[in-house]
Amino acid sequence: MKSIAALSIVLTLSAGALLAEPASTPAGNVMPAPAQARWTGGRLAFDPSFTAVVQGADDGRVRGALDRMRRLWELRTGLTLARSEAAYAAPAAGVKPTLVIECQALAPVVPKVGEDETYTLDVTADQAVLRAPTTTGALRGLATLTQMLQADATGWMLPTAEIKDAPRFAWRGLLMDPCRHWLPVEVIKRNIDGMALAKLNVLHFHLTEDQGFRIESKAFPKLHELGSDGLYYTQEQIRDIVAYAAARGIRVMPEFDVPGHATTWVVAYPEFASAPGPYQINRRPGVHDPVLDPTNEELYPMLQKFFAEMATLFPDEYIHIGGDENNGKHWKANAKIQEFIRANNLKDNPGLHAYFNRKLQVIVSGLGKKMMGWNEILHPNLPAGTVVHYWMGATGLVDATRMGFGAVLSRGFYLDHQLPAATMYANDPVPANTKLTPEQQARVLGGEACMWAEWVTEETVDSRIWPRAAVVAERLWSPREVNDVPDMYRRLALMNARLDEQGLRHEMNRDMMLRRFGDGVSMADARRVREAADLFEAGTLGVRFKQNPTVTQATPLTGFADCTRADSAAGRRFAADVEAVLFGDAATTRAALTEALGGWRQLGQDLAAGRIAPASPRVRELATLGEQLDAVAAIGLEAVAALDKGAAAGWSEAQLAALVKLGDPRLGVTLPIVKPVRLLVAAAGQAAARPTLPAADWRRQVEKAATPPAPKK
Amino acid sequence: MKSIAALSIVLTLSAGALLAEPASTPAGNVMPAPAQARWTGGRLAFDPSFTAVVQGADDGRVRGALDRMRRLWELRTGLTLARSEAAYAAPAAGVKPTLVIECQALAPVVPKVGEDETYTLDVTADQAVLRAPTTTGALRGLATLTQMLQADATGWMLPTAEIKDAPRFAWRGLLMDPCRHWLPVEVIKRNIDGMALAKLNVLHFHLTEDQGFRIESKAFPKLHELGSDGLYYTQEQIRDIVAYAAARGIRVMPEFDVPGHATTWVVAYPEFASAPGPYQINRRPGVHDPVLDPTNEELYPMLQKFFAEMATLFPDEYIHIGGDENNGKHWKANAKIQEFIRANNLKDNPGLHAYFNRKLQVIVSGLGKKMMGWNEILHPNLPAGTVVHYWMGATGLVDATRMGFGAVLSRGFYLDHQLPAATMYANDPVPANTKLTPEQQARVLGGEACMWAEWVTEETVDSRIWPRAAVVAERLWSPREVNDVPDMYRRLALMNARLDEQGLRHEMNRDMMLRRFGDGVSMADARRVREAADLFEAGTLGVRFKQNPTVTQATPLTGFADCTRADSAAGRRFAADVEAVLFGDAATTRAALTEALGGWRQLGQDLAAGRIAPASPRVRELATLGEQLDAVAAIGLEAVAALDKGAAAGWSEAQLAALVKLGDPRLGVTLPIVKPVRLLVAAAGQAAARPTLPAADWRRQVEKAATPPAPKK
Repeated sequence: MKSIAALSIVLTLSAGALLAEPASTPAGNVMPAPAQARWTGGRLAFDPSFTAVVQGADDGRVRGALDRMRRLWELRTGLTLARSEAAYAAPAAGVKPTLVIECQALAPVVPKVGEDETYTLDVTADQAVLRAPTTTGALRGLATLTQMLQADATGWMLPTAEIKDAPRFAWRGLLMDPCRHWLPVEVIKRNIDGMALAKLNVLHFHLTEDQGFRIESKAFPKLHELGSDGLYYTQEQIRDIVAYAAARGIRVMPEFDVPGHATTWVVAYPEFASAPGPYQINRRPGVHDPVLDPTNEELYPMLQKFFAEMATLFPDEYIHIGGDENNGKHWKANAKIQEFIRANNLKDNPGLHAYFNRKLQVIVSGLGKKMMGWNEILHPNLPAGTVVHYWMGATGLVDATRMGFGAVLSRGFYLDHQLPAATMYANDPVPANTKLTPEQQARVLGGEACMWAEWVTEETVDSRIWPRAAVVAERLWSPREVNDVPDMYRRLALMNARLDEQGLRHEMNRDMMLRRFGDGVSMADARRVREAADLFEAGTLGVRFKQNPTVTQATPLTGFADCTRADSAAGRRFAADVEAVLFGDAATTRAALTEALGGWRQLGQDLAAGRIAPASPRVRELATLGEQLDAVAAIGLEAVAALDKGAAAGWSEAQLAALVKLGDPRLGVTLPIVKPVRLLVAAAGQAAARPTLPAADWRRQVEKAATPPAPKK
Repeated sequence: MKSIAALSIVLTLSAGALLAEPASTPAGNVMPAPAQARWTGGRLAFDPSFTAVVQGADDGRVRGALDRMRRLWELRTGLTLARSEAAYAAPAAGVKPTLVIECQALAPVVPKVGEDETYTLDVTADQAVLRAPTTTGALRGLATLTQMLQADATGWMLPTAEIKDAPRFAWRGLLMDPCRHWLPVEVIKRNIDGMALAKLNVLHFHLTEDQGFRIESKAFPKLHELGSDGLYYTQEQIRDIVAYAAARGIRVMPEFDVPGHATTWVVAYPEFASAPGPYQINRRPGVHDPVLDPTNEELYPMLQKFFAEMATLFPDEYIHIGGDENNGKHWKANAKIQEFIRANNLKDNPGLHAYFNRKLQVIVSGLGKKMMGWNEILHPNLPAGTVVHYWMGATGLVDATRMGFGAVLSRGFYLDHQLPAATMYANDPVPANTKLTPEQQARVLGGEACMWAEWVTEETVDSRIWPRAAVVAERLWSPREVNDVPDMYRRLALMNARLDEQGLRHEMNRDMMLRRFGDGVSMADARRVREAADLFEAGTLGVRFKQNPTVTQATPLTGFADCTRADSAAGRRFAADVEAVLFGDAATTRAALTEALGGWRQLGQDLAAGRIAPASPRVRELATLGEQLDAVAAIGLEAVAALDKGAAAGWSEAQLAALVKLGDPRLGVTLPIVKPVRLLVAAAGQAAARPTLPAADWRRQVEKAATPPAPKK
């Protein structure tokens, strides 16, 4: 890992800041924020005469990235850039290139954990110069530069700047799961493009699961033939994906999940299961019982051969062996296995799991690979050198690093949990108040955003990954001190546009899905439905399961919830306005609140009364959301009206009680304005106290009154 | 070819008809319109209990299509349908299946020209029954049924109907051209899905060109290695595409264009060229000089080996050998070739071309294939049995069929020419007033919509094919008498929604492209720009070339013109309103005209003054369109105001003169309201005459005055 020179940047943006001039925010318009950036206020003009040269080391990766950036810029500006037939080798005589890239050395052919990713980027009024010790650093610099092209009143330009950049953590990953729902190659590739733009550097490819075995094995073809419904990556496709990622400086680490999550292993080979077969592909999410039998000595030659085959496909130095959510039921129920545990002094199921991992580690290290697994594998007998992937429990990172293992953080980075971007942004692997010793801190390699696919399809997966994965990327790349939430959201919106522009389908597919809310005949006028989808927030996993407890792999995920997002910008804006009106400066008027609430009341009533797309059964189903929205907005309007003169006795308490029920998720989505409306109601109830109390006391009192009672068990 | 039983349907819809109840239009909501359909006014309820059985013959193609239809219906309705683990083999005891499919026989494994595609579909209030002589007929029936699922006030349902359907022509094609711009496999596949929905049955795959050699040849790898920039289909991908199409009852006919359009052949093998090399891939559209040398006897063994290799990849009975646009310059300039012509009594270049075709025909027929070529190959010496593909000149169909050749029509079906749907709809291969004899008519196999790719990329190609290709499909499938233009446009809008829903990207990518009209920082609020893009129409090929005469393969095709369409619904609506106000019944008010014109004036002024997305250089470029729109709409408003009292002397003439200039295309797009505004202006000029003349005379007089002068040469 690179350590970063002390930061000289100061974060000053306040809530509600509008799109700022490039020079006014340390990060400019770039995400992840560079380690150091000075925006010098000038402009480097950009027009079709743009030229670039690549000097020093390059094996084509830098020229390739430069080609892609030029193409993106052409798409963005509509301008046709001059082509250099000499492939950036040298400028034409008398021409000063617009961009000079200088690399001192080639990066390793196979991207490596901890390889040098640093670069400097100096943009002056007549030239941009990108310098990097290695070609990978140049790729990271180009990801920054790509985001800098913008327009001012004169035309297209790059803002002048002095940037010195390096990652905080070496391991910045995205897990993709084509098992629960199939993700075709092009989905993987376009997400790799998004990763490159966000400077994420490892695709964690979760390839085997209870719900699907997604990779071709020539050694054991029954695995993909019987375990995939025909939906798997051929070995040629895997090589293609690995090469595509490597060209972008991105590792591809495969995961073959054993001994649990192993239904499809034993669909093909029931003889390796811990309970009698036959088995079928499991169509349901969740933790399932099938598990490999570590006491079967014939299992290990099979795993040896399989992992050896996979090692030829994935040149990465790590293999992830899963190891999570082994519920042990089939081990418990199998007398032979329990006897083996006793006979070998393994103590219990975790002891048997550790025995299995030691055998596996011999296989993996024999292939020249390092082993990684989910944090259930943490055990006194876990072989040294294993990297622990912390996803559950409260102390995974502490425990793993204390025991001397390298560790990667995913807890709090689960994209499928639909956490708001701000929550994930605050999930620092090594926060300022960390309890880790410096030695332990050095063992924290980084983190991974996880895109588990129980609730996504190829149609929606982009919308769950992006733009939020860019926030995880910033948390892992940028200095700890870069943590201004409003500026993060401002730049996240820009990143969203960049991702849309380069082919991620988070916006495009959502529009199409909203158009499906028609009557099956004409294309729906999706405007009003979209208004609702922009406001309601996608429920967490628990909310979704509660909405549809019988979900299977075949359930169509094209509902209203699938069109909503974790982060509602409208909800965020309203919460900020409430905060300002109740506790902020006097300049903020209440007009914004009444206008927003009035609009939502109307929307709610229109939905409830079936006035929107009345011919559509799908919109009619949203009536319950309309009723909820109408009721909550009505309470909010009454509260705003009562902020000064106060509410009638008991009104506030009654409304807060009503809002508890009204806050319950419906149709798998939640209404983000409930919480700020509770504040408004509480403030109306406490209006008389406001003049008599210090501001901080009043605020405390309002917030306390607004806090909903703890839910009953 | 199937002949169709006499039609009992009567077309009654008038202009401006709104979305009709299923029973009120013969075609219902289906495109192409079935040969015979009686909508019986009832409903078959649709809910998650939907079940289907497949009886009789099936090799998996029908079950596959049924799976896809069920999935589309799930996506459309958001409902999870019950799954039959028995794969549609038999209904559960006591359950009456919602849908019964009965096929009498398997269709040929490789789809064939003229194979049976007929089916009947009977939907009653308690069951739908689809019967077909072959599995291919069942696929066509499912394409119809897919479009019928819709909602009424009760919920989802299928309208009851008695449908008896058969194609008018056996050959209903779509040409795709991955040469001028590369089209990845997924683009081809999703367009095959669109073809299946529109009952198109042959993908004409144009694989070699001056701009790219797009198929892997293991016999002659230099062809794709040197001729494709690495952008070609592997043989595995070709097999995948062919199988994907065959599963949908769609042929894949490859085209290897020789002897002209052959630059990439001679990039690899300059020794087969008619002029000295070396050659480079040509980046420019147009007709280029490089041509194979038919006098080189070593050419034929090479072609023999190449075509033999390709014949193993493409099981279709036809191979298209191109043969178009051979300008003969290199033949003329080559003394040896001219001497060969003289020595062999070949008379001239066309004679040499015919000599070449005869040699080629021996190769092609030796492989068990039939030969097809563009109509330049028509020559007294053309081998019998060749199919002539009519694309240019005025008499291709007449000439070919008179000489005894089978013929396929593409003239008038060129999607890249940006012809309005109505124009292509009227392009009947065998119109009622045809001059073809019955024998000649029998030789007309059908037609093909051509999607030449000079002006499209993978991002925009769907938007040029769809939805208009569905109109060509209807022309080729439905009876000649199905030609109600307003009902065609009504159903085309429905088809557009179906195509969007199932993954075609004509709508999605356009939205994204319009969002790119920002400042390079934030995502543009594309609403106002879209308003303009919905009104202006994409220019014809000539207009585009005039706009950008230096276009190459690298030109970004992400401009405003690329976001417009051939058919502006807003323009069409305005023209219909003008027609009604000037020549129609008195009930039509003028308010619609002034409202539309007033809105466009405002839009034009906002664009011209830079009030829309002022930070965006791309929107600023549209100022010239804003000026045009403002000026034309202003004239239109004045004309509407003067319709009764008449215009001042000379006003009408002056405005018509101004409108000639104002009608010139700008930025590669045209303004469709110019023509109807000319009518308004002429009518204002003739207002005094209106009360004095019979309606028909007045109309003639107005139309004559509105006709612009013929352009000067």
